[in-house]
Amino acid sequence: MLQISNRGQLMPASPIRKLVPFAEVAKKKGTKVYHLNIGQPDIETPKLILDAVRHSDFKVLEYSHSAGNESYRRKLVGYYQSVGINVDYTQIIITTGGSEAILFGMMACMDAGDEIIVPEPFYANYNGFAVAAGINVIPVTSSIDDGFALPGIEEFEKKITAKTKAIIICNPNNPTGYLYTAAEMEALKQIVLKHNLYLFSDEAYREFCYEGQQISAMQLEGLDEHVILMDTISKRYSACGGRIGALVTKNKAVYDAVMKFAQARLSPPSFAQIAGEAAIDLPADYFDTTKSEYKSRRDLLVKRLNAMEQVFCPNPGGAFYAIARLPIDNADKFSQWLLEEFSFNGQTVMLAPATGFYSTPGLGFNEVRIAYVLKKEDIDASMDCLEAALKVYPGRTF
Amino acid sequence: MLQISNRGQLMPASPIRKLVPFAEVAKKKGTKVYHLNIGQPDIETPKLILDAVRHSDFKVLEYSHSAGNESYRRKLVGYYQSVGINVDYTQIIITTGGSEAILFGMMACMDAGDEIIVPEPFYANYNGFAVAAGINVIPVTSSIDDGFALPGIEEFEKKITAKTKAIIICNPNNPTGYLYTAAEMEALKQIVLKHNLYLFSDEAYREFCYEGQQISAMQLEGLDEHVILMDTISKRYSACGGRIGALVTKNKAVYDAVMKFAQARLSPPSFAQIAGEAAIDLPADYFDTTKSEYKSRRDLLVKRLNAMEQVFCPNPGGAFYAIARLPIDNADKFSQWLLEEFSFNGQTVMLAPATGFYSTPGLGFNEVRIAYVLKKEDIDASMDCLEAALKVYPGRTF
Repeated sequence: MLQISNRGQLMPASPIRKLVPFAEVAKKKGTKVYHLNIGQPDIETPKLILDAVRHSDFKVLEYSHSAGNESYRRKLVGYYQSVGINVDYTQIIITTGGSEAILFGMMACMDAGDEIIVPEPFYANYNGFAVAAGINVIPVTSSIDDGFALPGIEEFEKKITAKTKAIIICNPNNPTGYLYTAAEMEALKQIVLKHNLYLFSDEAYREFCYEGQQISAMQLEGLDEHVILMDTISKRYSACGGRIGALVTKNKAVYDAVMKFAQARLSPPSFAQIAGEAAIDLPADYFDTTKSEYKSRRDLLVKRLNAMEQVFCPNPGGAFYAIARLPIDNADKFSQWLLEEFSFNGQTVMLAPATGFYSTPGLGFNEVRIAYVLKKEDIDASMDCLEAALKVYPGRTF
Repeated sequence: MLQISNRGQLMPASPIRKLVPFAEVAKKKGTKVYHLNIGQPDIETPKLILDAVRHSDFKVLEYSHSAGNESYRRKLVGYYQSVGINVDYTQIIITTGGSEAILFGMMACMDAGDEIIVPEPFYANYNGFAVAAGINVIPVTSSIDDGFALPGIEEFEKKITAKTKAIIICNPNNPTGYLYTAAEMEALKQIVLKHNLYLFSDEAYREFCYEGQQISAMQLEGLDEHVILMDTISKRYSACGGRIGALVTKNKAVYDAVMKFAQARLSPPSFAQIAGEAAIDLPADYFDTTKSEYKSRRDLLVKRLNAMEQVFCPNPGGAFYAIARLPIDNADKFSQWLLEEFSFNGQTVMLAPATGFYSTPGLGFNEVRIAYVLKKEDIDASMDCLEAALKVYPGRTF
């Protein structure tokens, strides 16, 4: 018998995507499924971006530079300046989505058996990339009861061992929507300096902060050698399918090591680099419009959830996710049941069970992640479904 | 001091791309550089393909299915049928270039410390993906003197250990251009069956065979559980920048494991999937035209090389690469010297030193890989450069 590798067996199925086959079945039965499980916004990709690709007039779809087109990297310097991050174009590597930036960062800085600390719940695919890289994810648990604030320094220090090489944060956070405060970023800086760790900072949702403003890890003084920024255009410009991201670091040795991984895969996608480069020319008010749309969706979602019996959803400060605690026995079973057995007026809702966002076993069983990526009318309709479902779900706990 | 990981240090720089900075310097001096170092064809990407992207009219650049668009996978079944490969669309995963198919195959089937046997010289980036996956590449050496034919079974058996999990071939071969015979494919089948190995088959150059016809590993009877096909549109349609490939396997367990890696990175690039899908509608004579162009380039290149004093280049049966033996001390030094110090009528040529394609130390020092991806006029001009260079290179050996 041929064997699958241990890592192939250990590799987690995506908690966001593993229920897709059940959604397909629901759709084949004629049920409308509201996708609140995945961060796929319904907001239109700016026409300017798509048109840049549509009006491109090259004759050969060539490889680009392994670090991405120089013209794009140079323009990104201006984008980063506009958000208070000072970098040079030689400190930027264009990646195939933020995904590849995460994988490359882990690969270049960590060996098999090394440990990375992450506040949980966390973006589930960190698990996948960690398994691919053979590294161990060590969670520090944050709690829904205080809105998923960063756990105290002492909680991190309890987890630091000789094998700890890095801390990874996502700010504003996916899946919790939590926006780290200045004090929390300063605390992270102190831990990183004291224990000589890398700080991987996933800032995919930088622009989407509804009350405060994001503090980038790249803005922390004295951390130039420590910080590896993982970025993506996916959410920023509603361009998830482009698969364009970036790894940014001022650490030259890390940059050079990452470049070798980048060379092995030749280049990031050419069409979408054109889109990414064009995006930098969007008018300054682009984010105002999208942000205010997301804010009103968030407000609606949180209000609807907290109005349901025994449901609790802290108000997320950024990104476009919320985690809600539901009166259910098991979020995986409930999410599958919503697709397989439930419908309300011919409709149902697809959620992401929060269990997949925790690595501590037993956590998240009564929580789900909800992406408020659909228009308010759809959020309302999907909350109608959820509310009705919670009244009849056989595993409800009230 | 923060450390780079061991694998980050071990990761080889691309032998194809590591000389890029020297080429940039040559260009800044005003020297024209003929790029024979990289498989980037100058053949125009078919307009039909580019137009499919340009005329696309979606509003949101969405994630696709992690296995790629179902419509594309279904059409690929027809493409594979047309080349004698019978597969179902549920046996295909669209990947980000052939690169990702190689990485995913290694990750899903092999663990750190496992061994993969490969006839050398071999596509250098197998090294990169192997380092990323922590697996060991075990070479079986083929020789320029017999045109890089597959070494005998006994050479493979000498290398097989308890840690051997797979053999990887590229057919027709990059970097040698060698096309495996029916007898050689049968020999591989016997080894794979006897020792219960995976057979990874990189068939990027399937259509480019100038005398014989390719036998796909997927056509070998009784190997359904063993074969993992790694494919790409890059060379087939001169669409390298799209970053679209495929992993194809009838082994359900491997497919399912690869899908988990595919889910972690969300989806392959959306724009280029449109291009790939459109490519299947190209007229049947598309490959006749490109093939005859490549054949005439090959004929010119091989003739020019063998006419040079003490240069030997076996006639490659497929792909668009040739390896030539040159009367030089060191292919790396020579290739760098061509860019840094040499020019002929204001022109020079960029080659890929063959050392990077061998893993046995000391091999390939007097060989270079030449990609005949430029039009005949340019091949002629670049051979003029090479011929002149060999007369004055300080490290020449005659």
